[in-house]
Amino acid sequence: MNDAHINDRIPIAILGATGAVGQRLVSLLFGHPWFEPVALCASGRSAGKPYGQATHWVLAEPMPDKAAAMMVRSSAPVPEARLVFSALDAEVAQDVEEAWAASGHLVVSNARSHRMRDDVPLVVPELNADHLLLVERQPYPNGGAIVTNPNCSTIGLALALKPLDRAFGLESVHVVTLQAASGAGYPGVPFLDLLDNAVPYIPGEEEKLESEPLKILGTMLSDGSAVDKAKFGISATCHRVAVSDGHLEAVSVTLKRPADHATIMRAWLDFRADTDDLDLPSAPEHPILYGDAPDRPQPRLDRMAGGGMSVTVGRLRPCPVMGWKFELLSHNTIRGAAGGTVLLAELCVARGLVHQVASRLNHDDLLMRGLSLAIMPQS
Amino acid sequence: MNDAHINDRIPIAILGATGAVGQRLVSLLFGHPWFEPVALCASGRSAGKPYGQATHWVLAEPMPDKAAAMMVRSSAPVPEARLVFSALDAEVAQDVEEAWAASGHLVVSNARSHRMRDDVPLVVPELNADHLLLVERQPYPNGGAIVTNPNCSTIGLALALKPLDRAFGLESVHVVTLQAASGAGYPGVPFLDLLDNAVPYIPGEEEKLESEPLKILGTMLSDGSAVDKAKFGISATCHRVAVSDGHLEAVSVTLKRPADHATIMRAWLDFRADTDDLDLPSAPEHPILYGDAPDRPQPRLDRMAGGGMSVTVGRLRPCPVMGWKFELLSHNTIRGAAGGTVLLAELCVARGLVHQVASRLNHDDLLMRGLSLAIMPQS
Amino acid sequence: MNDAHINDRIPIAILGATGAVGQRLVSLLFGHPWFEPVALCASGRSAGKPYGQATHWVLAEPMPDKAAAMMVRSSAPVPEARLVFSALDAEVAQDVEEAWAASGHLVVSNARSHRMRDDVPLVVPELNADHLLLVERQPYPNGGAIVTNPNCSTIGLALALKPLDRAFGLESVHVVTLQAASGAGYPGVPFLDLLDNAVPYIPGEEEKLESEPLKILGTMLSDGSAVDKAKFGISATCHRVAVSDGHLEAVSVTLKRPADHATIMRAWLDFRADTDDLDLPSAPEHPILYGDAPDRPQPRLDRMAGGGMSVTVGRLRPCPVMGWKFELLSHNTIRGAAGGTVLLAELCVARGLVHQVASRLNHDDLLMRGLSLAIMPQS
Amino acid sequence: MNDAHINDRIPIAILGATGAVGQRLVSLLFGHPWFEPVALCASGRSAGKPYGQATHWVLAEPMPDKAAAMMVRSSAPVPEARLVFSALDAEVAQDVEEAWAASGHLVVSNARSHRMRDDVPLVVPELNADHLLLVERQPYPNGGAIVTNPNCSTIGLALALKPLDRAFGLESVHVVTLQAASGAGYPGVPFLDLLDNAVPYIPGEEEKLESEPLKILGTMLSDGSAVDKAKFGISATCHRVAVSDGHLEAVSVTLKRPADHATIMRAWLDFRADTDDLDLPSAPEHPILYGDAPDRPQPRLDRMAGGGMSVTVGRLRPCPVMGWKFELLSHNTIRGAAGGTVLLAELCVARGLVHQVASRLNHDDLLMRGLSLAIMPQS
Repeated sequence: MNDAHINDRIPIAILGATGAVGQRLVSLLFGHPWFEPVALCASGRSAGKPYGQATHWVLAEPMPDKAAAMMVRSSAPVPEARLVFSALDAEVAQDVEEAWAASGHLVVSNARSHRMRDDVPLVVPELNADHLLLVERQPYPNGGAIVTNPNCSTIGLALALKPLDRAFGLESVHVVTLQAASGAGYPGVPFLDLLDNAVPYIPGEEEKLESEPLKILGTMLSDGSAVDKAKFGISATCHRVAVSDGHLEAVSVTLKRPADHATIMRAWLDFRADTDDLDLPSAPEHPILYGDAPDRPQPRLDRMAGGGMSVTVGRLRPCPVMGWKFELLSHNTIRGAAGGTVLLAELCVARGLVHQVASRLNHDDLLMRGLSLAIMPQS
Repeated sequence: MNDAHINDRIPIAILGATGAVGQRLVSLLFGHPWFEPVALCASGRSAGKPYGQATHWVLAEPMPDKAAAMMVRSSAPVPEARLVFSALDAEVAQDVEEAWAASGHLVVSNARSHRMRDDVPLVVPELNADHLLLVERQPYPNGGAIVTNPNCSTIGLALALKPLDRAFGLESVHVVTLQAASGAGYPGVPFLDLLDNAVPYIPGEEEKLESEPLKILGTMLSDGSAVDKAKFGISATCHRVAVSDGHLEAVSVTLKRPADHATIMRAWLDFRADTDDLDLPSAPEHPILYGDAPDRPQPRLDRMAGGGMSVTVGRLRPCPVMGWKFELLSHNTIRGAAGGTVLLAELCVARGLVHQVASRLNHDDLLMRGLSLAIMPQS
Repeated sequence: MNDAHINDRIPIAILGATGAVGQRLVSLLFGHPWFEPVALCASGRSAGKPYGQATHWVLAEPMPDKAAAMMVRSSAPVPEARLVFSALDAEVAQDVEEAWAASGHLVVSNARSHRMRDDVPLVVPELNADHLLLVERQPYPNGGAIVTNPNCSTIGLALALKPLDRAFGLESVHVVTLQAASGAGYPGVPFLDLLDNAVPYIPGEEEKLESEPLKILGTMLSDGSAVDKAKFGISATCHRVAVSDGHLEAVSVTLKRPADHATIMRAWLDFRADTDDLDLPSAPEHPILYGDAPDRPQPRLDRMAGGGMSVTVGRLRPCPVMGWKFELLSHNTIRGAAGGTVLLAELCVARGLVHQVASRLNHDDLLMRGLSLAIMPQS
Repeated sequence: MNDAHINDRIPIAILGATGAVGQRLVSLLFGHPWFEPVALCASGRSAGKPYGQATHWVLAEPMPDKAAAMMVRSSAPVPEARLVFSALDAEVAQDVEEAWAASGHLVVSNARSHRMRDDVPLVVPELNADHLLLVERQPYPNGGAIVTNPNCSTIGLALALKPLDRAFGLESVHVVTLQAASGAGYPGVPFLDLLDNAVPYIPGEEEKLESEPLKILGTMLSDGSAVDKAKFGISATCHRVAVSDGHLEAVSVTLKRPADHATIMRAWLDFRADTDDLDLPSAPEHPILYGDAPDRPQPRLDRMAGGGMSVTVGRLRPCPVMGWKFELLSHNTIRGAAGGTVLLAELCVARGLVHQVASRLNHDDLLMRGLSLAIMPQS
């Protein structure tokens, strides 16, 4: 796609645009080569105000001027948006996302509400792009669909595990996390709760981390009807630590087939992502990086690897109990939330999901059709 | 022992008195009912200066006036001290501690140098007081001996594991730590390395945590000749986090015999410490505390439990991979270093080790003998 | 007063008991030798629940068992309480405190609502106990009255300035603060706002710091009708920093009369508090401490001086612009809020204010009368 | 200068290259369009090792590969370097910098050693580029010279004050700083000293802040013989706070001539930098930025303004004591150290100082001469 043709950009909306993840989406999508934000939606309290006034901006990079001037809308579906990014809280996401899908929109969601539904793809673009086929099973008219991005602590883990599962088969996984405060949104964790402290509990987090990877690493049935979940056991223990961004995870694995240091390293290095030939704007060159230093990865030093989109792995060594262990780090609000959602939306475009949506929605949208055909000669 | 008879106190020396752990020892031992500091020893640079001048005091409680005025000595053995506390770095502890033992002193050490020697007891007073018998195998004349306190991250783990091992038998243990900065001493970790960060590596720490518990939970052979180490496997992963004091540990265990939530809780609650009837001044009323709150233990809220001498356990729940998992917290510079060393010294006095030393050293030390007889009518 | 006669304790209520300052009041008042909490009051949402359930306890010391079991009440006046401590937010304090005063209660308030009223004493007990006379001008029946504790950043400043004003006369004062997060209550400041950061603004704080000291250091007119405010100029700049407790203030002063290092030091050391002979349980032995170390006072090391009730002063040196400058530190939630309020209530008891209230309220309360007569033979 | 002609780059050396400021210089100078690092120098311990091995790299951005492979040299002058950047500690800078100047090199120094010498320019490029003339008074042969960059806390202050001095005349300045930990270098401040703390003292810092601005804002005598220092009084109080990068300063000023909010704002906005037409690669578009938000500037949000080279000013308001007050922020290791030094070196090149050096050193260096002539047709 030629960036110069900005009129060709796909009109998009952002749900939950004033929140912490919503702000990162705003930051990534104003200026995105493929997407054109046409609606910033938020709760009733903010609706009707300019985004610049309605939002307590918490990012270090300045708010895009164009965003600041846009009037915040309610969360009701906006016809002119083709695709909608959802950064809603789970409580409201359930119904609002369904309403958009029912109106024929493609919903790319960061909320947990629909992730484990049998007919909803839960996708890390590099790992299981084929799961997108599930949308065919969804009940929404006019090409409406919901696709979901995993939980922030799941994505890095899934990326590091997939090559091991492919090469050796996973028997069981034990993961202990040190998660950043931004994972709780804004205002999120009070300063007094984390200063000189660590909290060994994040509500609902261990459940997500013990279930989502099994769906992501599951196998699409050949008839496209369902994902057969992976069968290995996962134990997750989650901590909140005094870090702004970057989830660190201590992982131990038991593998089914013999492995040694060299073959495990090779599994990671040789990993070929599903996205490798798609030229997606947000795809990192190397989704998995391995660092040799004995004291890495560290949140402050490694979270921005690959522009915040790569997972960094390190300290691979034998585990006296499980077999092998290592440490991983991924940026929880970029790869783990907004960035991951944008990459997923790009994948959907590349796979023709937006094309499908568009073609069913208004059949004369030639420009869009041309676009997706150009990207995917195979479709 | 009657606190009023301060002349009856046992004269003690402190090695490494100007360092971080040494300062905590100074704070605990000036005013201790049983001990009377007569020598504060440090490296050549400090020797000859008043302690108040030689020391960059880092504790919030003020330096004892009497300590401030004492002249710092070199680390050469001081005859008038009966017992010596060592807070030396491992590099120098090896030789200096041997020199004191060879001069007939009882050395109670916080350094790692002699911990794993076959003839050196590695003791958590509540757990394996009987291991003190090993000193009989030591080669030092005149009752000289070395006894050691475990590594700061080991003590809490050993305390939490012992009741489980007794009740159910340990098959394997997986522990991931979030350790406080004070564990690295002073100046220790640079501010720039831990602000907004966590470091997945502490040199040598995982090795200690994978070996020391096996010795502590080992069994004294009936002839007193050696400790038969415990056989379960341990996997340890250690992180440094932005906390001042208090090591948090996420523990998963596989047990040999059936257990459920209630029986595990009962094992901890019913735990009877070896120190229970000895009335040691530094022994906490409850060495193991269990907290019910879903988000505890936390360093800032729980590290001072039992005056910093109790380990707090919480979040007991099934582990999908190992069987059971829980979280524990213990204060690393109190229970895990200075306080643990003082408690160990108290145990040695109660068990007559200082008596033995004294009696061999100067046979007419009636006062000391009277003391230990009074405490231990059984001996 | 003999602590043994706990039946003689004055029944008290706490308003805003579930908040951060309210919790500190609970912690200080359960077990207080003079006071007996009979009512814990909070907003409608909490009323009717046991305090232990209604409260997200944030202090490191455990919640008193007796408090945990008490049923939280609404904020309506409770007849059996003689004296009420208010830790209400300013928005609600205005009316609720008036309602209690109108019902004949002595209200000792930490809220700002009534502080600057001409007929309300704003008191630091050591400095201006005589201002309590103002309550005679208040309109409330049956001895009802409101007395107020200054803002957390004001108290330390007023304590350090008063001896200078007495000895040399203050011409002008310039203060820049580094204030702790707990000053904003709980949940208060989000972690993401203060990590690796400092914020040069606290809403309303500079206004308080530029006005309250003038009232506290003002002079009671001889007819007791009003306080003539002090006339010196104050400039305040307030920052929020990444500290839990302890407000640090950089102060420059211009004095009216000649001063040198020695005479300023003497002014502080010779300071005689209004509370010196009253034996108030919460009064620190030395309200003003001077530290010699070049890098003190520091929040972590000095905030607990005098049990958190002393202000620590240091770094006195010439100011090339204003004349003299120094640094001060005081604990913002102890001296600056809950502890200061308790000390003020103790002063009120010692000065017979509770006696007066009691005597007017129910004239046969002989016990109370006996109590205050015993304390204050002069009244 | 055409960036494409990399062979035209000026060969430079870096002194103290392994330290914290040295690393930032390495990061900025490998890839700089005008300079080509040919020597990385450090103390004897590091000399002879590859830079990648000798350096404990503390920046988040990766070490340049080319730097990693370079062999570290001792600090003896290197003939092939034309210009040398000094990030040496003051203790060694004094002599080492003189040795390089005596060998005919232009030394651009971040150390304080020579800053206050009468014949050494102390320069903020935007403010007093004309002070560079002082090098003519220096005794070094072959065009050798020393120019210096101010202290990290001075630069932001000087930038904010200069427009005020020009427009209204400064009578006196009162500044209280909240300085970042990186100002102390690496390892610098221990974590335990700054966690939950602030330290009201930085050795030697207040002296620098009370003297350097007077030289920078001084006037070059018309005969170029000396700088007549500014005469206003400055009072500085310096704190270390728990921030990684970014010095925040609370400034009060007394002005000689009448000012109001609008005229002060205009003074800043209309400020024309000495560097405005020179097109220096490191010069920020706006050296002074004013932020309107009531709670800005903040270190985490504003330190990277202008790529870390702009000072951000905010909260301008009347000061009841001094007249006006405001808050400023500048990045202490970019603008305040490495970045400032690089900008100063660029100014020296633009002003022909390197040309002069070069021409005297080896008269046939036509390339260099061509270069500087191209830049400065006026010379």
